[in-house]
Amino acid sequence: MSWLVFGIFLVACLSAGATGGLFPPGKWYEGLSKPAWTPPNWVFPVAWTTLYLCMAAAGARAAVRPDNSVAMALWALQIALNGLWTPVFFGLQRIKLGLVVLIGLWLSVFFGMIALWQVDWIAGLLFVPYLAWVSTAGALNYSVMRLNPEAAKAG
Amino acid sequence: MSWLVFGIFLVACLSAGATGGLFPPGKWYEGLSKPAWTPPNWVFPVAWTTLYLCMAAAGARAAVRPDNSVAMALWALQIALNGLWTPVFFGLQRIKLGLVVLIGLWLSVFFGMIALWQVDWIAGLLFVPYLAWVSTAGALNYSVMRLNPEAAKAG
Repeated sequence: MSWLVFGIFLVACLSAGATGGLFPPGKWYEGLSKPAWTPPNWVFPVAWTTLYLCMAAAGARAAVRPDNSVAMALWALQIALNGLWTPVFFGLQRIKLGLVVLIGLWLSVFFGMIALWQVDWIAGLLFVPYLAWVSTAGALNYSVMRLNPEAAKAG
Repeated sequence: MSWLVFGIFLVACLSAGATGGLFPPGKWYEGLSKPAWTPPNWVFPVAWTTLYLCMAAAGARAAVRPDNSVAMALWALQIALNGLWTPVFFGLQRIKLGLVVLIGLWLSVFFGMIALWQVDWIAGLLFVPYLAWVSTAGALNYSVMRLNPEAAKAG
């Protein structure tokens, strides 16, 4: 693993993650009904910081291995979708479209995990917590959609 | 080049590009002073569609070559920054922060072009129009900032 490559992947993560600070949950999200199992707000930045380090390490490990084309393409796809969700959900307050983005993100992380695993099993393993978290986020987005039919009418 | 890999990179481009439809220029941007050389609005989607095809082809060509780690990491970084600019500029209407994102994007495209070139010269060449367009976009963002000091106060 090269530290330069790790650093570039980490900056890509932080670029996508910057949307979290730029489009904060705010009053609108506070006012929505949420399921009982919703993690407290402080968990989200802690989880994402951990995940970004794992994601960057996974990318950097796989990047220096041969036959990494599908894994590298899926790494790029997941970071593009990762940075799209926050502006759609919190910025545009579009709950249904947020779920569509999350389903795309889940698929890219799932197939990314498999592709990474085939290149380097530790890289694949480093995507497991990410897939678990995106599954949780998807379930939360879906629950918020069901619990707030009026707010979800925005699409 | 693998068509699967090309397709994944292209979907990553379209995910970043979706921000263009989700955060359209609108009345705010129409009301801003722009330099005389501003391209007409219809040019932007045409340019981006062409660029996305070039970017995906560059990624797919380099992905199947050995020693592509820096090129692949920079490809991922540029698409994360690419998808960040539109929500910042048109969504948050933050002209200065948009320029900061564009400078980061320019650097990632510039060094990405060099890294791609070292892996596959055609891949590097496919990033040249992208760098030219991001340079134009940066000059436009800068001019809009200088021409609209009141609007730029938002940061």
